[in-house]
Amino acid sequence: MEIRFLGTGAGRPAKERNVSSIALMLPQECGGFWLIDAGEGTQHQLLQTPLKLNKLEAVFITHLHGDHVYGLPGLLSSRSYHEGSGPLRLFGPEGVKELVHDMFRHTSSALDYELIVEELAEGVIYKDECMTVEAAPLKHRVPSWGYRFTEKNKPGPLLTGKLKALGVPPGPLYGRLKAGGTVTLDDGTLVKGEDVVGPAVKGRIITVLGDTIPCDCAVVLAKDADVLVHEATFREGMEEKAHKYGHSTTVQAAVTAREAGAGQLLMTHFSSRYSHADLPSLELEARRVFPNSFAAADFKVFKVESKT
Amino acid sequence: MEIRFLGTGAGRPAKERNVSSIALMLPQECGGFWLIDAGEGTQHQLLQTPLKLNKLEAVFITHLHGDHVYGLPGLLSSRSYHEGSGPLRLFGPEGVKELVHDMFRHTSSALDYELIVEELAEGVIYKDECMTVEAAPLKHRVPSWGYRFTEKNKPGPLLTGKLKALGVPPGPLYGRLKAGGTVTLDDGTLVKGEDVVGPAVKGRIITVLGDTIPCDCAVVLAKDADVLVHEATFREGMEEKAHKYGHSTTVQAAVTAREAGAGQLLMTHFSSRYSHADLPSLELEARRVFPNSFAAADFKVFKVESKT
Repeated sequence: MEIRFLGTGAGRPAKERNVSSIALMLPQECGGFWLIDAGEGTQHQLLQTPLKLNKLEAVFITHLHGDHVYGLPGLLSSRSYHEGSGPLRLFGPEGVKELVHDMFRHTSSALDYELIVEELAEGVIYKDECMTVEAAPLKHRVPSWGYRFTEKNKPGPLLTGKLKALGVPPGPLYGRLKAGGTVTLDDGTLVKGEDVVGPAVKGRIITVLGDTIPCDCAVVLAKDADVLVHEATFREGMEEKAHKYGHSTTVQAAVTAREAGAGQLLMTHFSSRYSHADLPSLELEARRVFPNSFAAADFKVFKVESKT
Repeated sequence: MEIRFLGTGAGRPAKERNVSSIALMLPQECGGFWLIDAGEGTQHQLLQTPLKLNKLEAVFITHLHGDHVYGLPGLLSSRSYHEGSGPLRLFGPEGVKELVHDMFRHTSSALDYELIVEELAEGVIYKDECMTVEAAPLKHRVPSWGYRFTEKNKPGPLLTGKLKALGVPPGPLYGRLKAGGTVTLDDGTLVKGEDVVGPAVKGRIITVLGDTIPCDCAVVLAKDADVLVHEATFREGMEEKAHKYGHSTTVQAAVTAREAGAGQLLMTHFSSRYSHADLPSLELEARRVFPNSFAAADFKVFKVESKT
């Protein structure tokens, strides 16, 4: 899995930084990609990447502020031009359905694919054979949500040394054992899958938060996540301003990452007052509290590594 | 005056071409600039130009298709960040007011300046000391409008040879005569402004059409315009497809320019099937019918010259 930042700015686009959107590249065997938020110009940013809209399978909106959502109508419309666009799931706060519906009504727009819109309720909002997605409310000026993406655990590796010692011949029996089955060898030996397969590989956890002030809700949602994507609108020392506008500073994001026991902190949603050249110093602020912190930039790609 | 193309594509953004928007730079003495249409990413395109949003004084929407209007909410919102943003006039078809209102309601947006929204009726829709703007309906799949921008005539030049011969001393009297006043010289001679000022300089006319099939309405609105901006979604030979989708071809745009007696044709709104490299051949198609034809491209600037 990879996280590809498409827009890392707050409020309005700047020359160096578009407004919010993040692409989550699903594990290869699961297919396409998902988007978290879709600020204006998200589809333009995608044009600069190898990602095609017909591979987009779901969009998760954190909150209904313009800089997170004004790109949605155009993105959904343009997806119709792409052959092979299957159904698309759109998750978002209460109101997202009406927002899309109104904009399409005003512009006489229709889609060539099925759009399934689901407004958020706390808890598990989606589950398939690859991923489980949970949502929980955060604390912002408008209802803002965070998402916790948990990859399914994978069966552990076959313990080939043990298999050889038991005299299991390589081939189809290996597959049956890996799937947890039981096999009887020619000499009558009974081999159970659980005895020849290592411990399951824990699925990776990615938590992506919408705009928020620091809160327990953020820590809970990010608990033990391998990667936490957290807004850091302002630098250290601007806590008062951050609080007034419902945002966090670099250090507050880092404290949440530390308290949650996350593996890595990726900061985004920087105020337009910060130029690209300011990012290293913002990163340093966070690293003093949580060493594995990074400032994201548009088009930067982070591989999602298991923290253990 | 100058016309600066910000987006020259149809339907959806492409790598080489954004969706529709045009900036009209007003005569220097009149101040800022106006926009015609605001497809998604218009504010991003503006960031690549010297134009600042606080100098934007009016937006004219031709029709409510997404590729002409999805950039409006973000553009209007971002203008609030610019100090010195005075009132902004927004003109557009019936429904534009509700579109903006709905999008702002869904996203809890408020503006720091006065937005004056006026829905279109045929005829003169705006007049100030510099410009008169008329609107007229065209023929498209949804109500689509064209705009005719007419610069105010300017007083002719002072005929300095004649003034000298009459013995008028240079200075304040010149100004009074230029303004059309009458002056009595020391020797009792009466000099009338109309006798020492050349003929008025006719204001330039720019017609910008929304999406349309060829129609008399387009010819009337472009009558004797110095510049006609006309959509040319398809190339010659694709008249049937163009008609089906309510569009024009290069040659149809050129015929309208010729029939209207326009000075110059600027073509825009090209289908994404055409690459940048196709533009010269599209231009040639139009030039066979109307020699002074040009294919616009994003960020291209055309000086508005009087056709006479």
